[in-house]
Amino acid sequence: MTTYWCERAWLGPADGVREGVAIGVTGDRIASVETPAAPSPGAVVLQGLVVPGFANCHSHVFHRALRGRTQSGSGSFWAWREQMYAVAERLDPDSFRRLARATYAEMATAGVTAVGEFHYLHHGPDGVAYADANEMGHAAVAAAREAGLRITLLDTCYLSAGFGSPVRGVQRRFSDGDADGWVTRVEQLTAAYAGASDVVVGAAIHSVRAVPAGQLRTVADWADRRESPLHVHLSEQPAENADCLAATGRTPTMLMAEHGVLGPHTSVVHATHLGPEDIAVLGDCGVYACLCPTTERDLADGVGPSRALVTAGAVLTLGTDSHAVIDMNEEMRAVEMDERLISLRRGTWHADELMTAATSNGQSSLGFLGTSGLVVGGRADLVCLRTDSARTAGTGGDAQTAVFAATAADITDVVVDDSPVVTGSRHMSLPEAARDLDAVVGEILAAS
Amino acid sequence: MTTYWCERAWLGPADGVREGVAIGVTGDRIASVETPAAPSPGAVVLQGLVVPGFANCHSHVFHRALRGRTQSGSGSFWAWREQMYAVAERLDPDSFRRLARATYAEMATAGVTAVGEFHYLHHGPDGVAYADANEMGHAAVAAAREAGLRITLLDTCYLSAGFGSPVRGVQRRFSDGDADGWVTRVEQLTAAYAGASDVVVGAAIHSVRAVPAGQLRTVADWADRRESPLHVHLSEQPAENADCLAATGRTPTMLMAEHGVLGPHTSVVHATHLGPEDIAVLGDCGVYACLCPTTERDLADGVGPSRALVTAGAVLTLGTDSHAVIDMNEEMRAVEMDERLISLRRGTWHADELMTAATSNGQSSLGFLGTSGLVVGGRADLVCLRTDSARTAGTGGDAQTAVFAATAADITDVVVDDSPVVTGSRHMSLPEAARDLDAVVGEILAAS
Repeated sequence: MTTYWCERAWLGPADGVREGVAIGVTGDRIASVETPAAPSPGAVVLQGLVVPGFANCHSHVFHRALRGRTQSGSGSFWAWREQMYAVAERLDPDSFRRLARATYAEMATAGVTAVGEFHYLHHGPDGVAYADANEMGHAAVAAAREAGLRITLLDTCYLSAGFGSPVRGVQRRFSDGDADGWVTRVEQLTAAYAGASDVVVGAAIHSVRAVPAGQLRTVADWADRRESPLHVHLSEQPAENADCLAATGRTPTMLMAEHGVLGPHTSVVHATHLGPEDIAVLGDCGVYACLCPTTERDLADGVGPSRALVTAGAVLTLGTDSHAVIDMNEEMRAVEMDERLISLRRGTWHADELMTAATSNGQSSLGFLGTSGLVVGGRADLVCLRTDSARTAGTGGDAQTAVFAATAADITDVVVDDSPVVTGSRHMSLPEAARDLDAVVGEILAAS
Repeated sequence: MTTYWCERAWLGPADGVREGVAIGVTGDRIASVETPAAPSPGAVVLQGLVVPGFANCHSHVFHRALRGRTQSGSGSFWAWREQMYAVAERLDPDSFRRLARATYAEMATAGVTAVGEFHYLHHGPDGVAYADANEMGHAAVAAAREAGLRITLLDTCYLSAGFGSPVRGVQRRFSDGDADGWVTRVEQLTAAYAGASDVVVGAAIHSVRAVPAGQLRTVADWADRRESPLHVHLSEQPAENADCLAATGRTPTMLMAEHGVLGPHTSVVHATHLGPEDIAVLGDCGVYACLCPTTERDLADGVGPSRALVTAGAVLTLGTDSHAVIDMNEEMRAVEMDERLISLRRGTWHADELMTAATSNGQSSLGFLGTSGLVVGGRADLVCLRTDSARTAGTGGDAQTAVFAATAADITDVVVDDSPVVTGSRHMSLPEAARDLDAVVGEILAAS
């Protein structure tokens, strides 16, 4: 049994921040929470503000290679996608694993204890399967384990380039031919991680563009039977809505609803361009709405109706998506800040709500049940933020400090399932992650 | 003569980033720039990406006490202002100086080498002048000097609560009675810093709300005669526009134009809610447009027409204003990101333009002429950013890295006028600034 003594800890929206909190851990679970408490002999002392582990619910890990590389011209989301595809084309299991490992290490130093990897880079060049058709998926899992994170591998069905258009170019690496082919492969993947407590295999539908309507239910049914997470990109760009309406006469939301995609295990990612009926349906289904604000800034997606979705019944979660930024504090803050920019009102979201979105809501959406914050029975994830940095000094040390003042650079300690992954702001097992990342990005970009 | 050897340096929009740059300094000026160059014996070696000093063109330094303290309720800009006034009410020259010193130290660690302090907290409680009527201004200058920054004290004329409304409550501390009273006091202030190379006394008009139309020209003429910077808040909130139209039949821009406020030494701050005619006039006058994007997020101001202003003829500068965030890298990035959120297009602003805005444009707007970047004759300000952090690794090390990947936490070294102010990410003369800030904020908030 480990005991952690926290100078301050955020115990959830009801209890807020308390001073002097002793957290006892048995196995990978929190066994006791006492406050006020003095540090006991042998306790691991965490100076600062301790919060639960962040769940990064939407990751395309290989996009990290594009940070700082796609900002030199003007253009659209679709022009950016061409640059992203050029990277996707060059990755092999080894370079993908190295890139993923260093990127997950960056996430760990930012307080992420579980990642949802929206994984569609399945096959080799020209779409030829590797000897193990899940070799790329295994590389993602191995990378997460090396970086000390839990992973939900959201294995993504991707079958078409658009409505009625077959995959082309690099997209052939994404496709399993049809949804039945996807099921066959994912069954093998699931079997490989049966019983693992640090890996969940979930399902994903890339988008209504990428999976024909008639095959949506095959993926949704697979997820339903297993009660596994099901993630989908939804209405990130106006063009997706227009194409879907033209092809099917329905919005992406309505099309997904009609084919059984939307339910309480479903996460809809972005959910930016929605009408009132879409919002009502998503709320009625009780979906998770996964916003990725720093990516939605970077890709010029716009600002989604976060409050309206939650008022309707959806549950907010967060992700760093393209990894233009990996900073869950900034991600929380950005939900509220971007809402202010378009509503011209302050305080749509309160700090406690955003903390809940980034931690327990997110962990639940990834299928890591029982991880509901710093409470008895919760998973033993602890993230410690400095309250004495240039950024956080004088800001009160409560949830507002975590959401509205701190950045990832303020995170000193990260414990995942009772293992110390980050100490003194350094990743313990991958101290050279940044150098490794630099090297692998160099290789990938040179290999044109 | 000092020689700095930079692993990489950004030499401006035309030359971009070069590897191996030797910068020779004589006095406070750059005397030579050579590239490619090897490090010479005795050179100060700066590993990473060196950029010119940032100019933080709009600061209300005491607002730093509010970071993380005003986010618990919903509301408007005007509700926030009540909380800000409660702090303004409690400050005295000593607490103001300590708060300012620690906040300027935070700026220095973020690469700021010159600050424009929009200073209106002139008098004592109930508006009674201190023995030296400029005691609070002197406190700001002393604080900047202790933190190693140059300062442009933008002494602010503030005479009314609104159109036709006298100052009330804490606003009495801001007022000199009339514009002639402001001139008398500012003349004394100017005399006190005659010949100083690190202090510029400039003028400010708080806003069209705070200076009656008939007195605008008195302040503008004073600035004109001295060719000093003149800063004004402009159209930050829709209510200001509505009130101005109702009272005068003109927009704030048109009213200021009519009274001689707008010229090439004028900085209009925020410039958020403008019509096409306003933009045309501001461009024709060649004003500086000082955007404060992280504050404009925080205060729910909205997103200003930055590109339209510059296309019309204005010059972009940046400020951290309320200091909800002090991070010039984020400030640069936010101009483009927030534009993307409302235009749904990428690439309105390029990294080189945003770097120019944050450095040479800003230094010029503050009256520090000759500070035009890393060129012969430029002021000897150097800011070094890590290119091997979790955030910046693999991002290419060019201007995109500075604008789209780095944060203030990546700044390792800051040289101001050839003096090493920050080394190894630590403020050399004020290593305990964060602790001091915590203490003084605690005192101020407790003194209710």
